Formats: sequence, structure tokens, C-alpha cells
Amino acid sequence: MKKETAKKESTRTGIGRYEVRLAGKGGQGMILAGRILAEAVALYDGRNAVQTQDYGPEARGGASKSEVIISDGEIYYPKVMNADLLVCMSQEASDRYYYDLKRDGLLIIDSTNVERSPTTRVVAVPITELAVKATGREITAAMVALGLICGLTKIVSEEALEKAIRSLVPKGTEELNVKAMQAGLDEAKRLLEAGLPVALPQEL
Amino acid sequence: MKKETAKKESTRTGIGRYEVRLAGKGGQGMILAGRILAEAVALYDGRNAVQTQDYGPEARGGASKSEVIISDGEIYYPKVMNADLLVCMSQEASDRYYYDLKRDGLLIIDSTNVERSPTTRVVAVPITELAVKATGREITAAMVALGLICGLTKIVSEEALEKAIRSLVPKGTEELNVKAMQAGLDEAKRLLEAGLPVALPQEL
Repeated sequence: MKKETAKKESTRTGIGRYEVRLAGKGGQGMILAGRILAEAVALYDGRNAVQTQDYGPEARGGASKSEVIISDGEIYYPKVMNADLLVCMSQEASDRYYYDLKRDGLLIIDSTNVERSPTTRVVAVPITELAVKATGREITAAMVALGLICGLTKIVSEEALEKAIRSLVPKGTEELNVKAMQAGLDEAKRLLEAGLPVALPQEL
Repeated sequence: MKKETAKKESTRTGIGRYEVRLAGKGGQGMILAGRILAEAVALYDGRNAVQTQDYGPEARGGASKSEVIISDGEIYYPKVMNADLLVCMSQEASDRYYYDLKRDGLLIIDSTNVERSPTTRVVAVPITELAVKATGREITAAMVALGLICGLTKIVSEEALEKAIRSLVPKGTEELNVKAMQAGLDEAKRLLEAGLPVALPQEL
């Protein structure tokens, strides 16, 4: 993987801009997941990324949301306007954020926690259940989600994702978290082989 | 501290907006410090906050920058335009970011690492040295910086800052990090008693 050397130095606005929102409840690791995704694509895949989290009334109510903008060019506005990818780990997140997903955007919900999807055009995966199966720890669901994102969208390389996970999770939990990521990748592979129609992002 | 009840629901743009940039090198903990500051003011002091980090060529070169916007009203633009507070933990950060500090903004530099300040209107504190003295660990310099910010600007309450530190630092290092924060608070107190002319932010 020599992505760094292949990086395009586009200066046109919006070229290859890819907007990701990761949403759930506090304690589901969505903020850490956002940081891992941003560092993976930026430090190891050689793209640019901005990662943001808002703390306001929602955060005080227990909601947790992290946004990552990925681009090969300059990132002029650091927040999600219309998400290309929305991952919802809770019912509230799904109800609330679906509205600013792009029409052809990808919605992934954790069917362990989200009962009612806002649309049938959704990839529903029992993310938390897969995490518990793979590692025995619910908190690793965020890593399963990252593995799914990697496998389904290819916006980040496996190598980069694994490096970023190893560098950012608490010391001593690296193997556990990488195992959870692998469970997400496996599930993505299974879904794609089963013929899941996933819109891949344009080449960034 | 009953800040939550005192929170003003301003809807006018920019009222009480306070822009913070924390800059240094990778490994100095500036991203964690930004997250701690944002959670402290938002979850425990009852204000709103947005926290951002950029990953691009600079990050790949080892620079690390975290931004926090604090307001009692809506935060329409989540990035620093003109910083009210700039904390620089490295020479490169100081050289690079001084230009977008407000004219009456507060510049804090870590004199352990910054040899040449871009201005004489600066609070130069041997932050890393104080951290090593207080805890024996350089990495706690970020917590000394947070203590200084708290003591000099009052944009965050001591109680909120301590809670956020305890909730976000790695398990088992809470006491160490709070000790470093305390060293920063003590230094701020010493500086203020010595007559340091620090412009306090308008009431948020």
C-alpha cells in the first residue's frame, strides 16, 4: 500500500469530499472511532481529514456524535452537510440524523440497538452482537463498525485502519480491538458476497 | 457550581464565542487536552462546545493541533477564525499559529520547548518542566497547560476540568493527571498574584 505516493494534490473545492457521521450514545466509542478513522486515512493512507465533535444539549442528554470529512484536496468546511456515510448505533441517532444523509448515501445501523430503521435502503448489521461474539466486550462494537466501514466503502485501507486502532486504543487492548475490526471486515465480505448492493464512493 | 442553571440561551451569532487553539507536536497530548476542555465546559459547566482536529500534511509532519470553540449560544462555525487563546507547546506551533491570534488574545507558550516567542505580549511558562517536576512524566504537560488555562482565563471551572480529566485520561493515571492540572493552577495563581496582566474573557 503506497497510497502516500499516489495522493492527488487537487485544489478544486469539493473534489472527492466524503462526509462521515458516526452517531450513538455516550460510551459506545463513537468519538474514538471517529478519531481512529481520521488518523487512519490521514496519517497512513495519505489523504486529508478533519474530525469534529459537538458538545451541547445532545451530548448532555447522552448522545454522542463524531464527524469525519475526508478529501484529497483542501477541506474548506469541516462539518457534515450531507453525509455520504451515516453509522447509527442507537435508535435516537437513527431517528435524528437520517434526514441529512445524501440520497445515494450509505446508512449502516446497529440492529442490536436500532429497532426501527427510517428506510429500507439500509445495511442493518447486529454490530454490538458481533462485537460480543468476537471479543466478549460490547465496547468493541465501535471497532466492528470501523471494520464494516472499511470493508463496505473502501474509504480507508485495512492496513491503515489497523495501524490507527493499535495506536489509539488503550494499551493492552490492541489485540481485542483488532479482532473486533476483523469481525466487521468479515461481515462486510459476507454481505458483499451475498450480493448486497452497496454504492461505493467515487475514487477520492 | 450551578452553571447549568445559569446558562444563557442566546441565539445571536457570536455572543460570547471564545476560540481556543492548542498546538504542539504529536505525543504532547494536545488532542486529548482539547477533548478534555470541550467536555469540561459542555458536560459539566453547561456551555456549548465544538472540538476539532485537522489531519493533513502538518499532522503527517508531526504537528498536532486541536481547536475548541466555546459559546453559550449556537456555534455556527466550528473552527478558529481569530483565536482568543493560543497555547503553543512547540517552536513550530508558535511560529505558525501566532498570526491568527486576536490582537487582544492570550498567548501561552511552553518555554521549555519554545525558545523564540513571536511577541513580548506572552505568558511564557516552563510547562513541560513543571509537569516533570509535579509528576515525573512529560506527557502530563498537557494537563499543566489545562490547569494554566483554567487559572488564567476562567473559561472552565476547576471542578469541571477535574471531572473531565478523570473521565478521559487512561484508567490508573487519574491522580497523576489531576496533580499535573493542579501544578498548572498553582502556577496561574502565582502569576496572577505577581501582577501578570491577563485579559480575562468577557462573561460567556
